[in-house]
Amino acid sequence: MIVDRTRVAIVGAGPAGLLLSHLLAEAGIESIVVDARSRAEIETTIRAGILEQGTVEVLDGIGGSRARTVGHRHDGIELRFAGEGHRIDFPALVDRSVWLYPQHEALKDLIAARLAAGQDLRFSTTVEGVHDIEAQPRITGADENGAPFEIRADFVVGGDGSRSVVRRAVAGRRETGSFREYPFAWFGVLCDAPPSASELIYSNSADGFALISQRSDTVQRMYFQCDPNTDPDALSEAEIWETLQRRVPGTRLAEGPIFQRDVLRFRSFVAGELRRGRAALVGDAAHTVPPTGAKGMNLAVADVLLLGDALRRLLVEGDERGIDAYAERALRRIWKAQHFSWWMTSMLHAAPGSDAFDRQRQLGELRSVTESEAGRRYLAEAYTGWPLER
Amino acid sequence: MIVDRTRVAIVGAGPAGLLLSHLLAEAGIESIVVDARSRAEIETTIRAGILEQGTVEVLDGIGGSRARTVGHRHDGIELRFAGEGHRIDFPALVDRSVWLYPQHEALKDLIAARLAAGQDLRFSTTVEGVHDIEAQPRITGADENGAPFEIRADFVVGGDGSRSVVRRAVAGRRETGSFREYPFAWFGVLCDAPPSASELIYSNSADGFALISQRSDTVQRMYFQCDPNTDPDALSEAEIWETLQRRVPGTRLAEGPIFQRDVLRFRSFVAGELRRGRAALVGDAAHTVPPTGAKGMNLAVADVLLLGDALRRLLVEGDERGIDAYAERALRRIWKAQHFSWWMTSMLHAAPGSDAFDRQRQLGELRSVTESEAGRRYLAEAYTGWPLER
Repeated sequence: MIVDRTRVAIVGAGPAGLLLSHLLAEAGIESIVVDARSRAEIETTIRAGILEQGTVEVLDGIGGSRARTVGHRHDGIELRFAGEGHRIDFPALVDRSVWLYPQHEALKDLIAARLAAGQDLRFSTTVEGVHDIEAQPRITGADENGAPFEIRADFVVGGDGSRSVVRRAVAGRRETGSFREYPFAWFGVLCDAPPSASELIYSNSADGFALISQRSDTVQRMYFQCDPNTDPDALSEAEIWETLQRRVPGTRLAEGPIFQRDVLRFRSFVAGELRRGRAALVGDAAHTVPPTGAKGMNLAVADVLLLGDALRRLLVEGDERGIDAYAERALRRIWKAQHFSWWMTSMLHAAPGSDAFDRQRQLGELRSVTESEAGRRYLAEAYTGWPLER
Repeated sequence: MIVDRTRVAIVGAGPAGLLLSHLLAEAGIESIVVDARSRAEIETTIRAGILEQGTVEVLDGIGGSRARTVGHRHDGIELRFAGEGHRIDFPALVDRSVWLYPQHEALKDLIAARLAAGQDLRFSTTVEGVHDIEAQPRITGADENGAPFEIRADFVVGGDGSRSVVRRAVAGRRETGSFREYPFAWFGVLCDAPPSASELIYSNSADGFALISQRSDTVQRMYFQCDPNTDPDALSEAEIWETLQRRVPGTRLAEGPIFQRDVLRFRSFVAGELRRGRAALVGDAAHTVPPTGAKGMNLAVADVLLLGDALRRLLVEGDERGIDAYAERALRRIWKAQHFSWWMTSMLHAAPGSDAFDRQRQLGELRSVTESEAGRRYLAEAYTGWPLER
């Protein structure tokens, strides 16, 4: 068995793990990043992405980020309800913007930058065991050839997504956490068509929620609320367009061939423990948010900034205080983001079994928020991202 | 049978009916106000009251209002959670304040002012029938001596509270509306004690909600969340104080003899129809809000300003457009207020069956609101009252 030794073993080559390896290298701390997936799989699994301005600025610092060139800056979103469209003007409200830049594109940038910097980055490498995290941690598993490996480290970080292996070790005897399953899902499509709108439209209609999003000049991404048990293949293209069209009254959608369709279930999750001894969790390993608030990747970046600094203090200065405070500090933002995601979800979707009171209250809420400069700004602050801390 | 004739028959001598009679008199429109209760009953039924600044200004215009002298101006409230107190500073945020002035005191002022102005105001007069509202309305019933009476009018207004008789006539064949019953209530006490705080404290504690309020230098009003089926007499004074004290950690409550206790159930209601032909509803006859947002009397005043102007246009100028628009215009504010009341309720109370996710999300929401100037201002705008329209 091959045994390696590093300062920080990072499980998961997603945005969190890759960014962390960069921040550690900046601090002179060696790390190894492993991921069970192949590089091609990571780079081609299409995932949406709305990047907060702070996230874009962090990616700028790594070098090679195409978020500002290939991605699109969005200066607002529209909230549509009761036949009215209300723009939330981000620069006017909070002097910030967001960038529409798919996550797999950001991952291409990050992987290229980390490899160019000489990062030890191992794809198709499966972690099966996380050991001794209270003292001298090790991870074990199988490398790209199926051969067993072991990596000994001073610290193990789980950036290995919602089915995290590291999370089980951090949880100890029994995994705990806060979980919420929502009674609806999004039916998402990718289609060949020109944009129907220049910015995202979040529409609360009497028939349910729809989101008109964009991908490029020729490919669009749209979603509509559906039952979580919907079979993605059960609807004809005509039915999909009819459903979408009915839910964004006032906009004539530019239709085109649909080449991908999927049903995204809505879940909220926060792990009960974010750190134990010499191991910690970041990103989806630590939390899941429903997509309505567009917080997934941004929250991972916020976790990593806190953890990167805590590990620098621990491993360079021998100061435990940063790592001891990590979970509590990260959780403050995580729960604000969970609330924001829940709020956007509950304000815009028709919950099964909801009645006239729920419906009218939703419209009363949407009016309260959009009619008030403070309400719009409160929403814009959260959407474009609260200030990042280190 | 005595038959009277007037322009507007107003059922209910609450804040809505009395204020409307004043506005109509200002416009030269004669009205008769009837109420099933005696004057003494109206003036001594203790009801809490937080008056928006706009409400206080409207009452100023009637003459004799003691809201600013006997009432207390409050320049903020405190939101308390997770051991932290966060003040919402109204003047700094929205340049407005609210007044703590019990509703029955405001009613004393209104009754005195209306009688001094020569208003035909009939107590202990029960309305049993509301007739012909599509054409030439009449109300019938029994006067203070039990003798039948009839009042013929050009318009009938129901300001007769949550069990409104006029509402049944306005609803037509079948009463409709949006209704919500909440799974908790407030246990309210009045006690002889000095104030424990100078402003209201809305406390979200792990044990449930509590509200520390004031009445005077020697009498205090406090509430704590309880099961709606709680027997008000089931708790000892010691148990009441222990419950209250545990729910406002950080404040040492000044205790004293409890001389009144009651259980207030939480309901939201909006009538399906606010106007039909020559009849309309205002105040509690049109809607009920839970007390958390302190919107009850303020919403009645907002209704009446709209209806008063609509009736002036109808009865003086013969213009139907104001009355035709009344329901839609009133409902915009009503549903914003319903939302605000629901929001304050859901943000601050522990719902039965709520889990760790709900609890942490609530704290995430309270942090989001209180850490953000925009969030605090959004709340303060609603609490101190959106601009009044006519």
